[in-house]
Amino acid sequence: MSEHAAASRVQLSGLCFLLQILTIILFAVFVRYSPESSPSLCSQQLNCSRRNQDLGLQHPRFRDVHLQALLGFGFLVAFVGRYRPGSVAISILVVAFSIQWAVLIQGFLHFFLNGKIYVGAQSMVSADFCTATVLISTGAIRGRVNPIQMLLLTLLGVTLFTINEYILLSLMGVRDSGGSLTVHTFGAYFGLMVSRILHQPHMDKRKEQQDTGHHPDVFAVVGTIYLWIFWPSFTSATTARGNTEPWAVLNTYFSMAASTLATFVLLPILHEEGTLRMVQIQDATLAGAAVVGMAGEMLVAPFGALIAGFLAGLIPLLGFRFLTPVLSSRLKTQDTCGVHNVHGLPGILGAFLGTLLAALATADAYGGRLELVFPLVAEGSRAPTDQALNQLCALPVTLLLATLGGCLTG
Amino acid sequence: MSEHAAASRVQLSGLCFLLQILTIILFAVFVRYSPESSPSLCSQQLNCSRRNQDLGLQHPRFRDVHLQALLGFGFLVAFVGRYRPGSVAISILVVAFSIQWAVLIQGFLHFFLNGKIYVGAQSMVSADFCTATVLISTGAIRGRVNPIQMLLLTLLGVTLFTINEYILLSLMGVRDSGGSLTVHTFGAYFGLMVSRILHQPHMDKRKEQQDTGHHPDVFAVVGTIYLWIFWPSFTSATTARGNTEPWAVLNTYFSMAASTLATFVLLPILHEEGTLRMVQIQDATLAGAAVVGMAGEMLVAPFGALIAGFLAGLIPLLGFRFLTPVLSSRLKTQDTCGVHNVHGLPGILGAFLGTLLAALATADAYGGRLELVFPLVAEGSRAPTDQALNQLCALPVTLLLATLGGCLTG
Amino acid sequence: MSEHAAASRVQLSGLCFLLQILTIILFAVFVRYSPESSPSLCSQQLNCSRRNQDLGLQHPRFRDVHLQALLGFGFLVAFVGRYRPGSVAISILVVAFSIQWAVLIQGFLHFFLNGKIYVGAQSMVSADFCTATVLISTGAIRGRVNPIQMLLLTLLGVTLFTINEYILLSLMGVRDSGGSLTVHTFGAYFGLMVSRILHQPHMDKRKEQQDTGHHPDVFAVVGTIYLWIFWPSFTSATTARGNTEPWAVLNTYFSMAASTLATFVLLPILHEEGTLRMVQIQDATLAGAAVVGMAGEMLVAPFGALIAGFLAGLIPLLGFRFLTPVLSSRLKTQDTCGVHNVHGLPGILGAFLGTLLAALATADAYGGRLELVFPLVAEGSRAPTDQALNQLCALPVTLLLATLGGCLTG
Repeated sequence: MSEHAAASRVQLSGLCFLLQILTIILFAVFVRYSPESSPSLCSQQLNCSRRNQDLGLQHPRFRDVHLQALLGFGFLVAFVGRYRPGSVAISILVVAFSIQWAVLIQGFLHFFLNGKIYVGAQSMVSADFCTATVLISTGAIRGRVNPIQMLLLTLLGVTLFTINEYILLSLMGVRDSGGSLTVHTFGAYFGLMVSRILHQPHMDKRKEQQDTGHHPDVFAVVGTIYLWIFWPSFTSATTARGNTEPWAVLNTYFSMAASTLATFVLLPILHEEGTLRMVQIQDATLAGAAVVGMAGEMLVAPFGALIAGFLAGLIPLLGFRFLTPVLSSRLKTQDTCGVHNVHGLPGILGAFLGTLLAALATADAYGGRLELVFPLVAEGSRAPTDQALNQLCALPVTLLLATLGGCLTG
Repeated sequence: MSEHAAASRVQLSGLCFLLQILTIILFAVFVRYSPESSPSLCSQQLNCSRRNQDLGLQHPRFRDVHLQALLGFGFLVAFVGRYRPGSVAISILVVAFSIQWAVLIQGFLHFFLNGKIYVGAQSMVSADFCTATVLISTGAIRGRVNPIQMLLLTLLGVTLFTINEYILLSLMGVRDSGGSLTVHTFGAYFGLMVSRILHQPHMDKRKEQQDTGHHPDVFAVVGTIYLWIFWPSFTSATTARGNTEPWAVLNTYFSMAASTLATFVLLPILHEEGTLRMVQIQDATLAGAAVVGMAGEMLVAPFGALIAGFLAGLIPLLGFRFLTPVLSSRLKTQDTCGVHNVHGLPGILGAFLGTLLAALATADAYGGRLELVFPLVAEGSRAPTDQALNQLCALPVTLLLATLGGCLTG
Repeated sequence: MSEHAAASRVQLSGLCFLLQILTIILFAVFVRYSPESSPSLCSQQLNCSRRNQDLGLQHPRFRDVHLQALLGFGFLVAFVGRYRPGSVAISILVVAFSIQWAVLIQGFLHFFLNGKIYVGAQSMVSADFCTATVLISTGAIRGRVNPIQMLLLTLLGVTLFTINEYILLSLMGVRDSGGSLTVHTFGAYFGLMVSRILHQPHMDKRKEQQDTGHHPDVFAVVGTIYLWIFWPSFTSATTARGNTEPWAVLNTYFSMAASTLATFVLLPILHEEGTLRMVQIQDATLAGAAVVGMAGEMLVAPFGALIAGFLAGLIPLLGFRFLTPVLSSRLKTQDTCGVHNVHGLPGILGAFLGTLLAALATADAYGGRLELVFPLVAEGSRAPTDQALNQLCALPVTLLLATLGGCLTG
């Protein structure tokens, strides 16, 4: 065992070294800072004025680059409550590599111009969404794979996420600012499929520890507070223009508040022991955030966010109680951190909600905001029902890509 | 006991469900997003331009909505050091409900227009001030009431806070940007009165644990750092215009720095055991923040903030040593978290300081800032002494409302 | 022993009291709020328009005052992983006094006008850089000095830091926005020299605990996340104009990501026990941040930041393994927190990198950014090689001042 461990340590070291050298070479060849950062250059040198328009108002986003690490790491903290200390180190390795890799892969698809990738605040925010997705995926297989497998999963996960995001946002014109589909649903089902493929029957005894935190609740408390503080910014980081942002932020707050109350409705009934576990409140908060990911910028009135959050807050508790045992015995998935209940199902619910809202989108209800939220509908080039159909179709596309990708990776 | 516990769990579940349904219905009937969020609409549809002027410059506040949860939860963290793990969950329940309820109640008083409440970034910040007050109040009775009583206290506390705030800020024209009176003093005395009414003699044995943290100092360290980071923003969140904000922020920093040093002056003398407890440093930081709540935007020179902070930093230590034993034996209040020493007394000191500064407010000392800090004085419609009188009168009004409300609630 | 302890407690109390009174008096005599805070006054009263131009665009900096405590305290958190609980309280005392003292000392050198110091957002940011340096210095002697010595060290450290910063930035025209030299190198060597002077042979047995955390990894996890979140803002807080900021931020992120991967390359080879310690990841993150302190705003392409971060990430691990034993036996320094490996060496590497980049600075590579990063070169009053020479000379100047100051203080 000791020799084996030593060999795997050297392998990990070598893999990290190789990947870092590869990234440095690729960065040296392809990646340059975007002249967007210095507006004075922009008009002179490149055709970046066109890009600026594509990306919407660029300047308000500059502040968001300050937030980008907040997001990925706030997310990390949110998961920490369920990890053992060793796996936190691995998570940070995953984040550190995933950010670099995502900048490269997303750069080839989104920011490629004249043979160079021009990175800026915008690409860091995209890379961070990608990192969040990979962290969700690793939540499903945590504790059962070694760091080398984790790095390879990151390598493939980032690539597949970017392809999925490209198909949904750029080709199909789907609006998913908070990542109900691209982040939560994709991340959860990708992780679950990898988990299914890697299923090892003799590990079942570990499954019992599934929904019990090994740590004291310190991490869960810190994680929940982080979520409340930073998630609304995450949800609204990529909303089209500055003007729609406040709705997405406020909707997310209301949804999280309602899902927290929902936990207190269900918890005393379901669990006899009566102890309120912080981890369950954290799960509800995450679910409440996931459900308004897509619909956050579409909801016209706050009571919609309250209802969505309330329903989403019921999912994790019901899921852990009734669904996880069935899934784990029938489909042989081992969902270490319960990502299916916390991210997968609320994400799907969020997608349906987004579809419904897109179908109802009329100029009366949205007023001048219509062109901000659904620019294609406002231009008249697409009917609200077509937009809704597209939003709906995005769901099977995401699920298909996630499961296929998961099989491949596994 | 088990049957009783089961019954109370079902009651809690039912109450949460009822309150959430009630909130959703009220939100559906009354609450809409403010068109302020999309300025392009504003000029066309409503008379919101007038409201914008009432509220001062709206746009710089949009960022503050990102901070709102920071504040309430930074506050929560600040208290966590004194809680047992179970009560953190209850606190989060209180916050989740209080934010929704405060948006409703404050909406009826402040943002009611044409039969609808128009919420926006501003209303979330107000709701958060309210939540902070309720958290202070619960600090006085923590550990002695069950979650159901806690929810009812929240329901009444939010309502009374809003009425007090309305009387002080709107009717009397008092300036209290950082909430020395509205948040700290009201919260502390409301909680103390409830605590007095709920006094149970046979609980005295628990009183011994009063000012000893049950946790290791981890939470107190995190809480203190949170306070330093986020409190200055809290104090300055509602200062009238963007221009006065830096003074409030800087004054709060200086005050907190001085109160921390004050703790180190007093602590080695008062406590023989010589161990510096983080909780005491945290109390001093809170007191230093509370004292400049009202005066933060009025202080012309930073040495005033240093003196105020230094005096405030002495209060909690002296209070815990000499005042709390007297209060608890004579008046039979049980102040679990010491809110009287940490919030009540520094808040009153802050109110006197604000009165003094208002009386000294002349055009010479303030220059162009006068119209920002005391618009009524600058207009000439009110003499500085009248303004000072009003600031002073706000203190007994707040105390009266807090004690009456506390009796009622108890 | 008890009498001695009691006497030292009274001494600490008295010293705190004296220092606070001294600060209040000096503040009362010299310090006023800068009219910069209220732009409307500026044109009327003082010649502050000139100052505004000296300091670059002032308004974007106003937000940074919100960040200032983030920085000092984020830093504090970063160190907490290595402290015992008692020393955290002392650190907060150091911070609280250091901020006040730094505002005074820096005010005399930088913001002195007509016999008054005009403080504003800018002076708080500078004071915070100073506080960070003092915290680095105290890291080298932690656990071996009493609070009174710590306060005196702060008193002298702040003064020397300000003199060094004044010589480098104002007299020599060196660019060091992220403080590779002024913060990291100066802080580390100042602390090391004090540590050498205070060397006590009979303390050697404590040295064994040197690089093992006494705490569980909780603090290291929180510290690492804080670093990722807030350090990039720290590095870019004083970059000349708003436009160059994004480069500094992005470069810092890339450098930290690469240094984290570097840790995973080296750790499995060097340490047989195979456990990934969070503290080591945190050290690598700090080193990655220190190395791009000077070069952050100069790097044109992100792959440079990746290479710099990768090299810097190797330093702490190699240093702790090979260099620290040599240093501690030969030079009799006792580097409690390993500041030499984490701050000193990466800071020097960063200075060499900055020199190299300054030498290569041409109008072709930088375009319109040249005048932002190197205004003297852009004006033609200084050749790139002269600028590079100045950057290089700043290193021995800093080292000299740090060692001399350390001897003196010791």
